[in-house]
Order: sequence, then C-alpha cells, then structure tokens
Amino acid sequence: MQIAELIQKKKQGDQLARDEIMTLIAEYTQGSIPDHQMAALIMAIWFRGMSRDETLALTLAMVNSGETVSLDPVAGIKVDKHSTGGVGDKTTLVLGPLVAAAGLPVAKMSGRSLGHTGGTIDKLESIPGFCARLHREQFVRAVEEVGIAVSEQTRKLVPADGKLYALRDATATVDSLPLIAASIMSKKIASGADALMLDVKTGGGALVPEVEQSLELASMMVDIGCAAERPTFAAITDMSQPLGRCVGNALEVKEAIKTLKGKGSEDLRELCLFLGSHMLSLGGRTSDLAEGRRYLEGLLTDGGALAKFAEFIEHQGGNRHIVEDTSLMPTAGIVTEVPSPLGGYINQIGAREIGSIAKELSAGRDTEGSIVDPAAGVILNKKVGDRVSPGELLAELHSGKNVDGHTLHDLRNRTIEAFNIDEGRASPSRLIRAFVTREGIRHYGNDTPEH
Amino acid sequence: MQIAELIQKKKQGDQLARDEIMTLIAEYTQGSIPDHQMAALIMAIWFRGMSRDETLALTLAMVNSGETVSLDPVAGIKVDKHSTGGVGDKTTLVLGPLVAAAGLPVAKMSGRSLGHTGGTIDKLESIPGFCARLHREQFVRAVEEVGIAVSEQTRKLVPADGKLYALRDATATVDSLPLIAASIMSKKIASGADALMLDVKTGGGALVPEVEQSLELASMMVDIGCAAERPTFAAITDMSQPLGRCVGNALEVKEAIKTLKGKGSEDLRELCLFLGSHMLSLGGRTSDLAEGRRYLEGLLTDGGALAKFAEFIEHQGGNRHIVEDTSLMPTAGIVTEVPSPLGGYINQIGAREIGSIAKELSAGRDTEGSIVDPAAGVILNKKVGDRVSPGELLAELHSGKNVDGHTLHDLRNRTIEAFNIDEGRASPSRLIRAFVTREGIRHYGNDTPEH
Repeated sequence: MQIAELIQKKKQGDQLARDEIMTLIAEYTQGSIPDHQMAALIMAIWFRGMSRDETLALTLAMVNSGETVSLDPVAGIKVDKHSTGGVGDKTTLVLGPLVAAAGLPVAKMSGRSLGHTGGTIDKLESIPGFCARLHREQFVRAVEEVGIAVSEQTRKLVPADGKLYALRDATATVDSLPLIAASIMSKKIASGADALMLDVKTGGGALVPEVEQSLELASMMVDIGCAAERPTFAAITDMSQPLGRCVGNALEVKEAIKTLKGKGSEDLRELCLFLGSHMLSLGGRTSDLAEGRRYLEGLLTDGGALAKFAEFIEHQGGNRHIVEDTSLMPTAGIVTEVPSPLGGYINQIGAREIGSIAKELSAGRDTEGSIVDPAAGVILNKKVGDRVSPGELLAELHSGKNVDGHTLHDLRNRTIEAFNIDEGRASPSRLIRAFVTREGIRHYGNDTPEH
Repeated sequence: MQIAELIQKKKQGDQLARDEIMTLIAEYTQGSIPDHQMAALIMAIWFRGMSRDETLALTLAMVNSGETVSLDPVAGIKVDKHSTGGVGDKTTLVLGPLVAAAGLPVAKMSGRSLGHTGGTIDKLESIPGFCARLHREQFVRAVEEVGIAVSEQTRKLVPADGKLYALRDATATVDSLPLIAASIMSKKIASGADALMLDVKTGGGALVPEVEQSLELASMMVDIGCAAERPTFAAITDMSQPLGRCVGNALEVKEAIKTLKGKGSEDLRELCLFLGSHMLSLGGRTSDLAEGRRYLEGLLTDGGALAKFAEFIEHQGGNRHIVEDTSLMPTAGIVTEVPSPLGGYINQIGAREIGSIAKELSAGRDTEGSIVDPAAGVILNKKVGDRVSPGELLAELHSGKNVDGHTLHDLRNRTIEAFNIDEGRASPSRLIRAFVTREGIRHYGNDTPEH
C-alpha cells in the first residue's frame, strides 16, 4: 500500500475508501506502516475530519485489529454503558450493580485514569483485595454467575487503539472527534455488548468541553453503533462542575456506597436513575421509562442494589464488608481544609482544575507509570448554587506523605481559585442537556426531563 | 522541550518563536525528537503555513544544523544561481561558464535528479571522467584557480534538510511553500554565496505549477535572502514546456555546448542571457543590464564562454575534447522515433509528462538508489508554436538495452499524448513571467523584458 498517496488524498480533503482504511489499520497494527506516516495522516484527519463512512470503517478496522469478546453464553441483551470521562464520575460504580440487580447483565471492560479524569479500574482497585484483571473466560463466567463483572481491558482487545492513542498523545491530536469516536466505539464493539448507553460529558471538565462538539461526538458514536447493529443512545450530561462531592479513588467508592444506600449527592443519583431507566428499556426489561425508574428507585431503597454491589466485589476478590464499614477503605494520612476566603454563592467550580488538583494529590496519573494513592483526592463541601460564609469549608484535600507542605499550600490556593464565589446566585447547569438517538437530538430545557 | 506543545500551538494556528524553532531543528537533527512528532508538526505547517519570521528562523536553524562553506578566500562577490527544478533545465551548464568567463566567480553546490526533474550533478557526470565530489578545500581552490567549480552537496552541509526532505517525501508534505523556501535557502546560505539569483519555475513541469504559488515562493525566498544579508532576486520563468529541446543527461550537455557556441534553442539562450546579465549586476561587474547582456552575447560568439566550459570540466577531471567532438559523450543504443499522427500546430507539450518519460528511459531516478543511464532521454523536434505535418517527427526517445520494446511502445504513445496538436496556432507561454526583488514584483507583459 502506498501510504503517502493516502496521506495526500486526506490532506487534499478527499475521502479514503473502506478498503484503504482496513488495510491501513491492519498494516499499522502489525508494524509495517511506520509511526511517522501515521502521524502525518492523523494530523491531516485532525484538519479535514472524517465522513460517516470513513469513521465507521475506521472503527470496524480497529475492532478487527485484535481479539473480540463473545458474550453469547450470557443470556439476555447485554447493555454496556460508557462515559467519555469526567471528574468525580463514579457512575459505573452505582449504575452497574443497580441495573444488574434489576436483572440486566453487566459485562464491562473499563480503563484507568489518565490526565485530569479518573478511571473506573483505579476506583475499584482501591477496594482491599479487588482484582480487575480477569481472563476472558473468568469475565464471561462472572457475568453469568453474578450478573455483573468489571474487568480491565486487555491489550489483546483493539491493539490498534493502544498504538494510535499513544501516537495521538505524542502528536497533539487527541482532540479529533472522529478519532475519539472510533476509539471508544471500537472498544465497546470488541467487548461484546449488544447495545450501548453513552454518557457524553460536556463542560470544562470534559474531554470535549463545548456542547456543540459533545453533540457532534455523540451523534457520530450513535451513528457508528447503529450502523454496526449495536443500538446506541447517548446522553449529553454536565461536567462543568465535578459529579457528586468526591474526587479520588477510595473517596468515590465511599460516595458510591452512600448512593447505593439511597443517599448521597442528588446529581449522581439522578444521573444513575436517568441512564439506568434507559438501559432497562434498551435491554428490554421494561417497556416504560417511568416504570423502570421507579423500579430502580426501589432497589436503592430496599438494599437490592447495595447487596448486588457487595456480591460483585466479593466475587472479584474484594472485601464485601466495606459496604457496612467504609473505614475498611484506605484513608488519607493528611487532610487539608480549604475554608472560603469570602461569603456568597458558589457560581462555578472548575471541574478540570479540581481533577488536576486531585491528580497532583496522587489520585490520578500523568503518565502510564505514575503511582496512584488510593486514598488521595478532593471532597467538595459546596456545590454550584450553594451559599457559603467566610471561613466556612469549601473543600478538603486528602493526601499521603508523598505530597509536601509547600505543594499542599499551592494546591489549597488553587482549590480556592477553582471556586467562583459571587453575591448573586447562579443556577447550576442542567445535569442532562440532551439525548441523542438514531432519530435525532432531543434538547432538554429547564424542566425535568420526561422519563 | 515539550514538542507536543509546539505541535499544538502550530495546529491551533499560533506562531512558533524563533528559539523554539532553533531548538526544534537542533534536537531533530541530533535525533532526540522522533520522526512521528516532526511528521505531525510538518503536516500542521502544511495546513497553517509559516510567517515570515518563522520561515527565516527555520532557514537559519537549518543552516546551523551542519557545516558551512566559507568562500572568503575567493576574491569578489560570489553570486549563486539556483533553479527550483524543471524538465530540460540545463541553464547552469551554460550560465556557469558564461558568467565565469565574464569574471564572476561561480561556486556552485548542486543536487541530483529526483522524480520528473533533472539534476545538474547527473548531467555533468555524463561527461567522461568528470568528478563532482570535491572536498571543501578542493572546491574553494577550484573557484580561485578556474573561476568556476560545481560540486555535489555534501551530507555535512545542512544535514537537517536531508532528514526533513526524506520525512516530507514519505508523508506527502513536499509541497509546502515555507518548507520548500527554507530547504532551498538554507543550502544556498550554507554554501557561502554572497548574493543569489533564483530561477523559480512555473507551469506544469515545475515543483509548484501555479504562477501565484511560484510568486509566493519567490517572495518568501527573496525575503529570507535579504533578511540573511544575502541580496536575492528571483525570476519567475516558464516550465509549461521543457526548456530547450533535449531532456536527459548527455543530451543536455550536448545542447549546452551548442548554446555556448552561440547556437541552440532560443529559449535556453534567452534565459541564460537574462539571468546572466542580472548576475553580473548583482556581482558588481556592470552597472547596466543592457551592457552586461551585450558583453555576455559577445562571450557566446567569440568562444570565451566555451573555452571557460572546457577549462572547468578539464579541471574537474572531465574530457575537454567533448566541446569539439560531442560523439565522445555517451550515446544511446536505441533511438525510437515518434512521428506525429496528425498535422497542425503544437499548442502544448506537457513538461511533467516528458520529464516522467525521460525518467522511465532511465535518464532520472525514482528513488535515491536508481541507476541512471547517462545517454538516455528525449529530444523534442518540435516546440510550442511550431507547425507539424502528419508523419513528421515530434520527438526521439533515446534508451539502452534495459528498456524493453513493450515499454518503448508505451512511452512512444505517451509522448504523442504529451503533445497537444490543434489547427489554430497558440502563442507559446512567455519565457520570463515576472521578476521579484525586495522592493516588489514586476510582471512582464507580452513585450520583451527590458534589460
């Protein structure tokens, strides 16, 4: 294959053919196309974009680059949920056991934190004993036996993605919508789900901050999913402030447990019920969204969801007693309080900045090799719309001995800066901004979305 | 240096700082920046372009990447001439000895043919015994002793260019004006010239076919030269049909000898007199262009230019007797005649296609490793504006045993296709299209340019 000709084509704004993309990805994965040619092509894609057909071909070519998981042994419609990543986004920890308790099989392959966003695998691994590295057979068996399994994605699944992501990271081309869409969708298709519920974050803490771009990304992914015969819906949800009140691995597990007990932050609970009721509908468990929602609310109240969570973590080697006694979770040695320097209303909390502060407290990682402190992170005592008095606590920074006093001092100041406090009260951004289906986009106004 | 940040900057359309470009090229040349990051940056440059300051910084950074030649031991103003490359462009073979005979020192570093265009070094090496590989000291001494030397550019001169060119070739980014300008100007500045006369080709056989782009490229290079204190002028000259009548190494040397004897193609002679009179002016040999031109015309008539050519090739080991007896030059074993299938006027001769046919006859090379047949090439019996009768000769294809009958048959048909023959007579494109100086662009209309 004359790759320089493909680069030239894309550079001039012409489309690549399906066969060209298939060969390109196959040859790149096996190493016969060098990184410098792929880097030039990817930069040309950044400028020219990709058509619907090209993005679909790229996704399928990436699926073909490695092994795929078959969930056929598991009865029922397997609905996967995927978030494009945010700060404090522990939705999977709640939603997984919740819909599993409702009878929907959950077979989830997940990633680790990188940059300012967290990763479900790091969160689960903060639970003493929990093992996220399951073989394909163990993974499928766990879904059959418990109804839910969460596993680290193996390198054998979509190897093209790992290689391409590293290249994009080194060449400032991560923020290309068709490449993001193909990366996510290839992993979802390869991991065997029948249908997909996407949670596309929008706002400062999201991978794609502008709502128009979030909508475009969601539409691309819904298109790809439907074209690949995996019915796909996407919710556009707020990431202008962190989700819930905790950011950091063990802290988020504790918050998830609180939510599974029917308490916790309203935004997290609402997001789980919204996505969960759509998943039940996608999975054919209920014909009616409102009915599904009521059913899920019941499972949060009657302990059904919490019991499924305990069963799930125990099956993967974790200590199930954390659900009754969260002091069994790792706890930070140093807690730095961040009081408010002034009074007023919280009008904004910079999600990306809070994510970045949490990362510097060692809750996340800068590079693949960074060591994560499971106990580290940030607790927000105030959310957007709350009133604060001077000296009242805005947040707490949780850290270990590896973070020195000078750094903590800086991070405390940065935390204060991340809060925008004013005299007038601004309404928090709407949690659910839009819902994208094959048929089109439904925007939500200021009323509660209809369920 | 965080190269991903520089890529991001350029991708977003921001300018790179002078220091950033300096470090970038230094680190790339020494291998501490990988090709894939440079490839992404180069593609971003293809889309975003480079400012005047950026292009100048890139040029100087490339000059700094290796050794430079000092021509200080040679008395007088050293004026170099450079063509952006074309088909049948043997100007240097005539112009070098011509202006050297007029007392202007000529110290020229030149390249080999690549793709559809020829290279001066390949042409000179078709002369039996000629050696184009001179050490720096030999080179300078030859200029002092003979007044003219032409040497292959060493790899020690502007090593960044060799590395970047190979990368651009592999990533379809050769056609970026600022990168072309920096590549040419860095080599010219590093090879020690005091002043520069650029011949920027325009039309189908040129590196940059559109006249607007040729003008832009010329302006960039004039800017760089003047900013680097090397007074630089550029002529925009026609490459819509091949220059002269011969394409191929030994064939072009023979045509150059004819021109040095005051005969030969009018276009080649005119271009040499035009560029030569400007070079004499740049080099301070005459204050008046018309006077310079008359002086050069005299040197073509009285044998002065031819004698200098003979002295030059003898000094570099070549057989000087070829000037009297061109049968001493390599001669092709097979000559394929290409008669015209119809009568009419020649309205176009596709220069790029003729160059490509010559290359396939082994006059040029596809890759650095290709073997060149010095005798191979194309002779045009007709030029644009000429009348042709059915069956009359359009061209001759010269080749060796390595080109088989089937290929020759195809190439003969392609040669016929390259000629556009019509009933009405179209005027040939004007030879000298524009002249670019620091002060601006002078366009030439349909009258003879003023000398």
